[in-house]
Amino acid sequence: MTAPLYNRVALIGLGLIASSMAHAMRANGLAAEITGHARSAETRAVALEIGLCDRVFDTAAEAVQGADLVVLCVPVGAMAAVAEEIGPHLAPGACVTDVGSVKQAVIEAVGPHLPEGVAFVPAHPLAGTEHSGPRSGFAELFVNRWCLLTPTAQSTPEATARLRALWEGMGANVDEMDAAHHDLVLAVVSHTPHLIAYTMVGVADHLRRVSNSEVIKYSASGFRDFTRIAASDPTMWRDVFLTNKDAVLDILGRFTEELFVLQRAIRMGDGPHLHDYFTRTRAIRRSIIEAGQDTAAPDFGRSALPAKPAPKD
Amino acid sequence: MTAPLYNRVALIGLGLIASSMAHAMRANGLAAEITGHARSAETRAVALEIGLCDRVFDTAAEAVQGADLVVLCVPVGAMAAVAEEIGPHLAPGACVTDVGSVKQAVIEAVGPHLPEGVAFVPAHPLAGTEHSGPRSGFAELFVNRWCLLTPTAQSTPEATARLRALWEGMGANVDEMDAAHHDLVLAVVSHTPHLIAYTMVGVADHLRRVSNSEVIKYSASGFRDFTRIAASDPTMWRDVFLTNKDAVLDILGRFTEELFVLQRAIRMGDGPHLHDYFTRTRAIRRSIIEAGQDTAAPDFGRSALPAKPAPKD
Repeated sequence: MTAPLYNRVALIGLGLIASSMAHAMRANGLAAEITGHARSAETRAVALEIGLCDRVFDTAAEAVQGADLVVLCVPVGAMAAVAEEIGPHLAPGACVTDVGSVKQAVIEAVGPHLPEGVAFVPAHPLAGTEHSGPRSGFAELFVNRWCLLTPTAQSTPEATARLRALWEGMGANVDEMDAAHHDLVLAVVSHTPHLIAYTMVGVADHLRRVSNSEVIKYSASGFRDFTRIAASDPTMWRDVFLTNKDAVLDILGRFTEELFVLQRAIRMGDGPHLHDYFTRTRAIRRSIIEAGQDTAAPDFGRSALPAKPAPKD
Repeated sequence: MTAPLYNRVALIGLGLIASSMAHAMRANGLAAEITGHARSAETRAVALEIGLCDRVFDTAAEAVQGADLVVLCVPVGAMAAVAEEIGPHLAPGACVTDVGSVKQAVIEAVGPHLPEGVAFVPAHPLAGTEHSGPRSGFAELFVNRWCLLTPTAQSTPEATARLRALWEGMGANVDEMDAAHHDLVLAVVSHTPHLIAYTMVGVADHLRRVSNSEVIKYSASGFRDFTRIAASDPTMWRDVFLTNKDAVLDILGRFTEELFVLQRAIRMGDGPHLHDYFTRTRAIRRSIIEAGQDTAAPDFGRSALPAKPAPKD
């Protein structure tokens, strides 16, 4: 066994991503010690109970003391306050990173609060489930998933390389890109699809002529996948939309333009237009399977569904 | 073993649903003999090669002769022509059914072509995968899924009861409802979600500043589920939108209204509005899991993804 990459990793915020990192770092011997802090006393109690961290602290300031890596795993809107709190307590030579879904806003929120001699390497693992909280993590969450690093002027090559090794050690593939480009890419592949899914689920909820029980009973044919997306953490997603506003509004504008063209084709009965469009989108699906980002298994069928209700989310 | 429900079942169209029905009827001893027809010679050859049907005919007219159940498994837009062709060849006392995703249009297309003494019981199994063709079927596709029957004046109680027993024998749960209500419910839970998914995938494809390879690489966080939906059969979906036009345009109108309200909340920075909305949609997801229509397993993670590209769709 080689030496751990970090002597002490402090996880600030103990939800899905932090708890998965704790399991993954332990499973792969990447951190000698893991400390943690969560704002909620209940979350801290659960983290202690299930042994998520070696030590759990009541404040972020205590949790980061002596840590050579600090990982901010709080919603994007909470980053500035946490950074301000921990700034004075960071060890010289430490590296601060985050796991936020938006990068420009995090850089603006965190950067100014970090002292000289502390590196800052923003990161975003493209992994998650629709579950949240300290019990939702699992060591394999990042395996074969991407983690995007968006280094800034506060990143050193050494700190960036060590963080890359951490993510690779947890099974992720790592890419580096500019923070602004990251935010645009994510607006396309994640943020706008989430908003659309939330909207469609909301429409179904409001409709009077179709009951919610009908929507739920017959959800298998498309809607179900929207509800899975729309079950993600509300606080995290509120912050994503508020902090990646420009890119999301840009992509939303394109989306509604495109939707109106299809809507018009339906109204005018333009079959060839619809058929051509649906044929092109099918090709993109093939590319995703070929890139190893999903399986070709017919997931719609989900033939192994339980006959009895599953445990709650 | 009890006697089969039907002596001879004729499957017209040999795609995903028909091939799954063939496997399921055989696995459950529901039909003494299965005949089949597909328009494409290649599909007929595959059906023969894999033994999907006991006999495969070059014309639908031949395939339905002597059948006590005829199942129309062609796209909705092709139903009228098939019904016209088979009408004169149907056996007295036979039952005709279909598996179309739209019911009012199928009733209008098929009903007038059926002779006296032949029952017509429209049906719609809410099951499918993003795959298509005669090799894509599997016996368990309908297990624990809904099949909706929309009886008309041409349905007899006996024919409806026997068809219900067939679908239950293949593992489905069966409900009956009015065809117009069916079309509205499906516009909400299936048709509009599909159109939206197709649109979002199209937007990603058009965008110049984000490359398709980036979209494909980083698709895991939401977009991937849209592409799965958007990979469904283009001909089937063209016909769905052209034949369930009114209900789809109604739901699309509500969707864009709702989307504009959320878009405005983003633009105005209205965090509480977004948080409330996302909290309500999360509750709907819980209900779907409790209703047994999906598992609580964290499917987003898909931790067992292959490291190598999977076989093509």
